[in-house]
Amino acid sequence: MHEGLKRFKINDQFFGHYQKLVQEVVIPYQEKALKNEIAGVDKSYAVENFRLAAQMVSTGRCDGEFGGLLFQDSDLAKWLEAAAYSLAITKDEALETRCDEIIDLIAGAQHTDGYLNTFFTVKMPGQRWTNLYEAHELYCAGHMMEAAVAYHEATGKDKLLKVMCRMADHIAIRFLDEATPGYPGHPEIELALFRLYLATGNERYLALSKHFVDVRGVDSDYFISEIENRSWRQWGGNGKDKEYEQNHMPVRDMDEAVGHAVRAVYLYSAMADLANATKETALSDACKRLFQNITERRMYITGAIGSAYEGEVFTKDYHLPNDSAYAETCAAIGLIFFARRMLEMEADSTYADTMERALYNCVPAGMQLDGKRFFYVNPLEVVPGISGEVPPLRHVLPERTGWFGCACCPPNVARLMLSLGAYAFGESENTVFSHLFIGGEYETKAGKLLIQTGYPYEGTIRYGFAPEKESMAITLAIRIPAWSEKTEIFLNGAAIQPEIKRGYAYIKHTFQKTDVVVLKLDMEPRRVFAKNDVAADNGRVAFMRGPLVYCAEGVDNQGQVLNLLAPADGDLKELLCEEERLRGCVIIKVRGYCVENPKTLYTTQRPERRPCQITLIPYYAWGNRGKTPMRVWLPEI
Amino acid sequence: MHEGLKRFKINDQFFGHYQKLVQEVVIPYQEKALKNEIAGVDKSYAVENFRLAAQMVSTGRCDGEFGGLLFQDSDLAKWLEAAAYSLAITKDEALETRCDEIIDLIAGAQHTDGYLNTFFTVKMPGQRWTNLYEAHELYCAGHMMEAAVAYHEATGKDKLLKVMCRMADHIAIRFLDEATPGYPGHPEIELALFRLYLATGNERYLALSKHFVDVRGVDSDYFISEIENRSWRQWGGNGKDKEYEQNHMPVRDMDEAVGHAVRAVYLYSAMADLANATKETALSDACKRLFQNITERRMYITGAIGSAYEGEVFTKDYHLPNDSAYAETCAAIGLIFFARRMLEMEADSTYADTMERALYNCVPAGMQLDGKRFFYVNPLEVVPGISGEVPPLRHVLPERTGWFGCACCPPNVARLMLSLGAYAFGESENTVFSHLFIGGEYETKAGKLLIQTGYPYEGTIRYGFAPEKESMAITLAIRIPAWSEKTEIFLNGAAIQPEIKRGYAYIKHTFQKTDVVVLKLDMEPRRVFAKNDVAADNGRVAFMRGPLVYCAEGVDNQGQVLNLLAPADGDLKELLCEEERLRGCVIIKVRGYCVENPKTLYTTQRPERRPCQITLIPYYAWGNRGKTPMRVWLPEI
Repeated sequence: MHEGLKRFKINDQFFGHYQKLVQEVVIPYQEKALKNEIAGVDKSYAVENFRLAAQMVSTGRCDGEFGGLLFQDSDLAKWLEAAAYSLAITKDEALETRCDEIIDLIAGAQHTDGYLNTFFTVKMPGQRWTNLYEAHELYCAGHMMEAAVAYHEATGKDKLLKVMCRMADHIAIRFLDEATPGYPGHPEIELALFRLYLATGNERYLALSKHFVDVRGVDSDYFISEIENRSWRQWGGNGKDKEYEQNHMPVRDMDEAVGHAVRAVYLYSAMADLANATKETALSDACKRLFQNITERRMYITGAIGSAYEGEVFTKDYHLPNDSAYAETCAAIGLIFFARRMLEMEADSTYADTMERALYNCVPAGMQLDGKRFFYVNPLEVVPGISGEVPPLRHVLPERTGWFGCACCPPNVARLMLSLGAYAFGESENTVFSHLFIGGEYETKAGKLLIQTGYPYEGTIRYGFAPEKESMAITLAIRIPAWSEKTEIFLNGAAIQPEIKRGYAYIKHTFQKTDVVVLKLDMEPRRVFAKNDVAADNGRVAFMRGPLVYCAEGVDNQGQVLNLLAPADGDLKELLCEEERLRGCVIIKVRGYCVENPKTLYTTQRPERRPCQITLIPYYAWGNRGKTPMRVWLPEI
Repeated sequence: MHEGLKRFKINDQFFGHYQKLVQEVVIPYQEKALKNEIAGVDKSYAVENFRLAAQMVSTGRCDGEFGGLLFQDSDLAKWLEAAAYSLAITKDEALETRCDEIIDLIAGAQHTDGYLNTFFTVKMPGQRWTNLYEAHELYCAGHMMEAAVAYHEATGKDKLLKVMCRMADHIAIRFLDEATPGYPGHPEIELALFRLYLATGNERYLALSKHFVDVRGVDSDYFISEIENRSWRQWGGNGKDKEYEQNHMPVRDMDEAVGHAVRAVYLYSAMADLANATKETALSDACKRLFQNITERRMYITGAIGSAYEGEVFTKDYHLPNDSAYAETCAAIGLIFFARRMLEMEADSTYADTMERALYNCVPAGMQLDGKRFFYVNPLEVVPGISGEVPPLRHVLPERTGWFGCACCPPNVARLMLSLGAYAFGESENTVFSHLFIGGEYETKAGKLLIQTGYPYEGTIRYGFAPEKESMAITLAIRIPAWSEKTEIFLNGAAIQPEIKRGYAYIKHTFQKTDVVVLKLDMEPRRVFAKNDVAADNGRVAFMRGPLVYCAEGVDNQGQVLNLLAPADGDLKELLCEEERLRGCVIIKVRGYCVENPKTLYTTQRPERRPCQITLIPYYAWGNRGKTPMRVWLPEI
């Protein structure tokens, strides 16, 4: 398990609440969904598929049919990973017993040669490894490896870990020893093998991870020839859109983020893992170029990525439409994975700023505040009656749905929310990095850090110290977010001016139990403007406060948002939200203008404007109060 | 032929030029394309298909394969119709001879039972009438009927007219006498049969036209059952999206314009024809509701219709995206067809205003200024590098192309431009309606109207009179466009104030040869605003002058348009364009602001604005000077 994960106990209002929600609502709900126990939503079949696969393995027959999509195994794997994190946080014998039962089922579905995949075992026996392009075989293995590592580190139990090591060995024989050509259509196993290597120390897994990254795009026609040599197709792609699967060129040559956004950031995450392990500059340079291309040209203000529904892809620089965005929750999560690994590459606050942007905006928006419904797609503008209804906006739902047939996002949110410890801190030698501002206790080698904060609504973060011995002689490196214009740091009440390098304030000190470091961030609400090249945002302004992007929803603005004009100046008032459903978040009010709606479609009569109060809520909380229009970027006058 | 067509000789700078262009460039170019004589563009095969079909009919075999799309016959028909109009305007023996040869070919492709369609004759013999849903069989027949009527009226020759009467008879036997169920997937034959009825006086054609309109959508499952009973499919639709073909309900119940936009307005045009002929109020009321729904909720400022590429459809009220618009040239032409028929229903300037809007903006934008290249799709915003490249903007080309495999638009532009006489005037009893302001000579029963104008660039229209006898005792009903805020009318230099009814000024007078009526329209450039409901236009302004919509193109604005902010006030200067390529049109200059491009994707630093001159050109002329960004709706400050 990542160092930070087990050693950080979150205890704050924001993510503490989310963790509780995931533990109490999301994990039990998803378990029911995976077991087909929820009426009225798409059936998952994920657990049932393993039952059938185990029958097949033991008897050569089974009493049912494979259900759901061919990558259904990964839903169960992601849930199991989330459950493992939950167990690491809170002991829960009943949950652990149920996990063990599921793991028994999984182990039973493993063939004697180590192979494990319910789709191929139940539905397509004899077709193993014939469809790396579409069939997500390595992808599912990767997610199960991640679950295995997490479960082992959370509970000490190694049954699933052994199962997945055997599967990894099986894969290694094929692709390393026998040198069978190919690489996965959907990257994931690369980063999973890297985790398996960290967990086991087995360098063969590192080698296999590196192999898949190294060969990708070298034979960029691999999928085309695979399709020609195969008698079956799942969806019917022809393998010619090579950017889609990022096999258009060797990874070290890449400098633009292209294709399916989730695949892209999973691949880049593995590239960064390997670059960090091998110190290979060709690889780390590629990672830096790709990260830069995403965050400087292809990322929404919410940290969302993937501008287009068709192909769920990155498109071109600065093409960031608000209404037709794809902006998948999983892609933002993948960007967080990538950013964390880049932070390990170099302690530069840019990476943590990006991680924070996605973590406080796009990702929580993916989940209803009650934890029961989810968004795949996270648009920045919604007009009920049009969004979700018309081409090309059919994918843009104005309300979250319960459970999808393709349920990648919900368990991905769950596993991220329960593993934030791995993102909040970093350590290198004697330096402890505070990347994210989450309240709780973090255990370093020298003792505990005690973090108290009302972040993201309050900008004060207090660091207390509980040394193992007398004192802790460490460097506390605190990220100064780029958005904080006036930042103050105090040591025991006195302002200090520590050295700042690449966005981190380095406080080298022998901390005593009584010491307190206080970080005060600039929480003034602020106006944000986009580059001119982003056509959708021309003449528009967005509002942020701290790490949070704000939006206007009709429900707070007399039912409308398309009539709102934001003022170019004027105070932005912060208020505690009185709405029960928004859990006491800080809202912003600003005196702007409401435009009278012209009586005709087009008119030469300038529509009247009357001053009005515009209410803005945090973007992550949108869509929790029924169907109502929403807009992040408001026209400004 | 429509009354106005033969009796109006256009002679002005604007449409006179277009007519000349169509006659000298477009018709010869298209003839070559239809004969597969142009290298480097999609082959048409339209003429070749008729040659093959004629072989089939005479010998039962042919020496080639059907080429192009299954509705290829209609391209030739539309060209022939345009050629007929050209011959009506200008005698051209060589062209007429070539037309006659083509007509001989067409006549040879007719079966003895009257059936005529090259796709079914050459490629699918035995499958006639099995695929009304997709196969455009009645659609092609309709276009050829229109060509036949036009050619007869232009040349007096009736060979093609007789051919098409026999085809109409063949169809009437099937659908009227034998009462075979069914109606066309793509409306067109309804309005064509109506023209055939007007040209021949044969009421059976009126009855057949009315039949197709009457049965449409009554059995709204017709296409579904047709698909079930048929062994072949062309594209594979399932007939369940009934709005697409406007068979979701009986036509008299319709009140929203839905589905494929071209199909819709062709159907509505036929409905209006029939309502005008039969005076049936259920039908005329439906037409009025549909026209209102389009023009008050689903039409771009350019007169374009059809907001979505997928299905080329109307979507929902007020969904009018600028960048992803479909806005097909043919659909705007169909809206002109519909509007002209509504004008015959009631002399209300709303209809003529709409006709004018499409005719001066979307339709001419469909053709390059040199007549050689065409747009299918007429977006209101284009960013080269993104438009035409990324989903969902792949259909939005920043430059016109030469000839399409599906070449519906180019010949449609040609036939419209050469038949404007049918749109400019109307007559009822003793009243002559001047709907559009086009210079030339118009022959009424009592004598000629002589119209002189520099419209659309100048707002003065002079009406002179050349009575047959001493004088012309007529009522001259001149449209007062809704956009003209201050309009003056003079009779022999003295301001008059004639009665104005529903947007027409009725000047009842016994006109002498020396009389002159002068209409002075308000040509002040004006700012236009859209209803708030049009999300894409919030906070934005468009510019118009007279009937022309203006746009900003990068080529006139230091290469950029995304950086332009239009001023809420400030003079709009009109200048004669010095650009050779824009043919001396009037451009507009306004002092607005250029926004400095922020250095980062998102910034809290308000970008600097510097005053700058914004140059606007008429929308129809965009895209004639290389790839450059273009925007109609500018953010306003």
